[in-house]
Amino acid sequence: MTKTVQEIADFIGGTLCGNPLEKVTSVASLDRAGPGDLAYAESRYVERVKYTGATCVLVASGTFTDRTVIFVENPRLAFARAAPWLIPTERPFVGIHSTAIIAESARLEKDVAIGAWTVIEDGVQIGNSTVIFPGCYIGKNCKIGSGCSIFPGVVLYSGVEIHDRITIHSGSVVGSDGFGFVFDGTRQLKVPQRGGVIIEADVEIGANTSIDRGALDNTILEKGAKIDNLCQIAHNVRIGANAIVSAQTGIAGSSVIGRQATIGGQVGIADYCRIDEKATVGAQCGVPSRKRVPAGQVFWGTPARPLKDIKARQAYLNRLPKIAEEIQRLRAEVEDLKRKVEA
Amino acid sequence: MTKTVQEIADFIGGTLCGNPLEKVTSVASLDRAGPGDLAYAESRYVERVKYTGATCVLVASGTFTDRTVIFVENPRLAFARAAPWLIPTERPFVGIHSTAIIAESARLEKDVAIGAWTVIEDGVQIGNSTVIFPGCYIGKNCKIGSGCSIFPGVVLYSGVEIHDRITIHSGSVVGSDGFGFVFDGTRQLKVPQRGGVIIEADVEIGANTSIDRGALDNTILEKGAKIDNLCQIAHNVRIGANAIVSAQTGIAGSSVIGRQATIGGQVGIADYCRIDEKATVGAQCGVPSRKRVPAGQVFWGTPARPLKDIKARQAYLNRLPKIAEEIQRLRAEVEDLKRKVEA
Amino acid sequence: MTKTVQEIADFIGGTLCGNPLEKVTSVASLDRAGPGDLAYAESRYVERVKYTGATCVLVASGTFTDRTVIFVENPRLAFARAAPWLIPTERPFVGIHSTAIIAESARLEKDVAIGAWTVIEDGVQIGNSTVIFPGCYIGKNCKIGSGCSIFPGVVLYSGVEIHDRITIHSGSVVGSDGFGFVFDGTRQLKVPQRGGVIIEADVEIGANTSIDRGALDNTILEKGAKIDNLCQIAHNVRIGANAIVSAQTGIAGSSVIGRQATIGGQVGIADYCRIDEKATVGAQCGVPSRKRVPAGQVFWGTPARPLKDIKARQAYLNRLPKIAEEIQRLRAEVEDLKRKVEA
Repeated sequence: MTKTVQEIADFIGGTLCGNPLEKVTSVASLDRAGPGDLAYAESRYVERVKYTGATCVLVASGTFTDRTVIFVENPRLAFARAAPWLIPTERPFVGIHSTAIIAESARLEKDVAIGAWTVIEDGVQIGNSTVIFPGCYIGKNCKIGSGCSIFPGVVLYSGVEIHDRITIHSGSVVGSDGFGFVFDGTRQLKVPQRGGVIIEADVEIGANTSIDRGALDNTILEKGAKIDNLCQIAHNVRIGANAIVSAQTGIAGSSVIGRQATIGGQVGIADYCRIDEKATVGAQCGVPSRKRVPAGQVFWGTPARPLKDIKARQAYLNRLPKIAEEIQRLRAEVEDLKRKVEA
Repeated sequence: MTKTVQEIADFIGGTLCGNPLEKVTSVASLDRAGPGDLAYAESRYVERVKYTGATCVLVASGTFTDRTVIFVENPRLAFARAAPWLIPTERPFVGIHSTAIIAESARLEKDVAIGAWTVIEDGVQIGNSTVIFPGCYIGKNCKIGSGCSIFPGVVLYSGVEIHDRITIHSGSVVGSDGFGFVFDGTRQLKVPQRGGVIIEADVEIGANTSIDRGALDNTILEKGAKIDNLCQIAHNVRIGANAIVSAQTGIAGSSVIGRQATIGGQVGIADYCRIDEKATVGAQCGVPSRKRVPAGQVFWGTPARPLKDIKARQAYLNRLPKIAEEIQRLRAEVEDLKRKVEA
Repeated sequence: MTKTVQEIADFIGGTLCGNPLEKVTSVASLDRAGPGDLAYAESRYVERVKYTGATCVLVASGTFTDRTVIFVENPRLAFARAAPWLIPTERPFVGIHSTAIIAESARLEKDVAIGAWTVIEDGVQIGNSTVIFPGCYIGKNCKIGSGCSIFPGVVLYSGVEIHDRITIHSGSVVGSDGFGFVFDGTRQLKVPQRGGVIIEADVEIGANTSIDRGALDNTILEKGAKIDNLCQIAHNVRIGANAIVSAQTGIAGSSVIGRQATIGGQVGIADYCRIDEKATVGAQCGVPSRKRVPAGQVFWGTPARPLKDIKARQAYLNRLPKIAEEIQRLRAEVEDLKRKVEA
């Protein structure tokens, strides 16, 4: 859609500086934008605004000559708001492909789109306007809300429940058995994995992520949580509303992540941990079993500790060569004193 | 099936305390169980037994009033034994779906079930009662034993051999090329990856795991090994009988994991390592190339060392601030002594 | 094909020692080779040459009695050259399967092979002799070069561009949305993920790897880069020509890996890093945000540092018990001196 820069400023609640009638039709990065593009500049890149070809740039502050800019508090946030308004997402396809296999007992609401070769098993329910791409498998009695996007090759095991406006990227598997075995002296026996998975509205799940079903209870992802690619969410985990879980992170059984917590990439959270509300766990952290990270705190390292402790320890580690030298000096001086005192 | 609590006690070899005629029909967690449910309580949760709605609870010890319990040595193990006996798993489906593509030269024994869109290539053999869900790909000349469950979207490359009662969860790939390249000055040339994969009976493989074929010899998973989600098993690895490999662990080329070894989550084992029988490698460990972890030992950290060494080192690290202070005090006292001795 | 050992020596530029007319038809590992096999021995295994059943062994040096060997500088490289010449890879299948769904607007050059159930969307272009196995999904407007091998179950999102002779193993996903969200106080809003993915010629991608599309610009893998299984390549990453990225490594947004760099397994590279040409980043390294690893250097540890610094630190850590003891001794001697001086 075409919008004037004034319309954009009004929509995002910013202050326009420039000709209000200039027109914008698309979005691009600062470096590659051209005429008709809206771009944004975070503070560290604000120097590049003068070189951009963009028609209009969202910025937080600065002085710009011969540039149309809109001042907003958080340019990235404003851009995230403006872009889907400027360029509404189209439905990728409509209708139910003739090759999709849909059980008679499945119940589809209106405007559901289902791609080729997708299998919908008995008892499945799918809400309005949900799109399931080709090659997906939706197991028995799954419940899928409205407005979801399930990309090619996703597998939902039986009984998985996903609410409205959920996106699941390709290759992700939801509802596979949790990893629970107990050795009987001869064999590893499986502990029953009969729980479910409940994924609340507005959750997004990246590609090739695995979310296991609960052992006896449920694995739960609360409203608006965002999970990146290649993550492992084990049985009985609960992830809080709007929490962020970055790529390749693993969360072991029964751990609870609080709402708006931020978990970095490649983090390992052992079982029965509690990461409280708005806490941050840095990339590659290892959080030991049953550990609690208090609300709002930033933890780092393995075993994970408060960031300031980790920094203090790093400082001591950096002083080790000096400590060793000082000990050598002390030794020499003590020997010298001993000689003098004995004399 | 309905069983009396006495029948359950007899089956698992426990001692019943309560009315022997009470009836159980299902299993549940201690917290969510209701009438008709069997639950279990590990020692740390035994206090919760008094609040459960379960008809019967498996416990190791304790005194319970107005509660039907069965005393067993290991409640979790007893539960793992009782549950499948109480609730036998049903076959998920039967027969060969009309859309499955099965090469004429493939040989299927009886009661094989194959789901929609699954492709079975030339020369494949499949044993009795094996179930292959929709959307799988079984490459040329694969041999699959009896009683296996292959979940939706699994890929077996050509020539993979899997024995009886094997479970492979969705998204896992078995038999892809190992990662072997050698730089010729201009390009990275592939070193031939022509070996096979042999997976012995009773192995279970989680979701989205990758198991590479051997370079020239075979990659081997021995009887009863259990591999979690998102693991990387490289070319020529051998994993011992009943070993446990937790999620997101990677095992590099030619490493050997001993029988009943336990590998934690996100562990990295470099190439040519030996983790001996019943050894434990803690979560997020990094085991350097060609390292050996002796039988029965517990290793931790990166680079992985015996747990007691890691703990000793942690203790020294925790003492660093005190060590630094003591050095400062010594310095002051030595200076003082020097002044006095010189005087 | 059958070749004489002299032909092989000539082809790889080595020096034959043995009967030039002996015939070789296949390749095998040193330990399992038999008559007709070509094997190779790296220096550390050269002692095993005397026990091999191979007809001919590629070696770097040594004295061998009753053994046909070819002396070459780099036996593994020579083997990688000889093997595909001795055993040319066959096309796995030909033609377009009747069940493949190919959009009318897709344009396929000659000798393209497409397996069962694969979906080729509108506007796709596929070059000569490319093979796409069953169960793949090729999104709208993807461009695929010639001589590529796309294994079963691969998903390319719309607009992905892959050049000639590219191999993508099963379960890999290319072009999924990058992980970019910004919190608006209530919800995590998606920052637009509208860029592309460009994969240049001769790249190989392992199984179950995820490569995200750029946010606004492109994610780029340069010519000949090799990516192992279960890797995460985030939005706007650039991986240099012939770089090696080992299994389970994650590279966060906008980081740049130089040509011929070697990245170990389970490495985590945070966002906006630069790993320069021919640098090595050791297994399980954590490279912090915006860090630069200079060309040709070897970095190790978390946070990643030059290998020699890490080794020096390890040496100090190993000395900690001795440092603590020495401080205790100094304390005792200082106390003794104080008594004597006071007296």
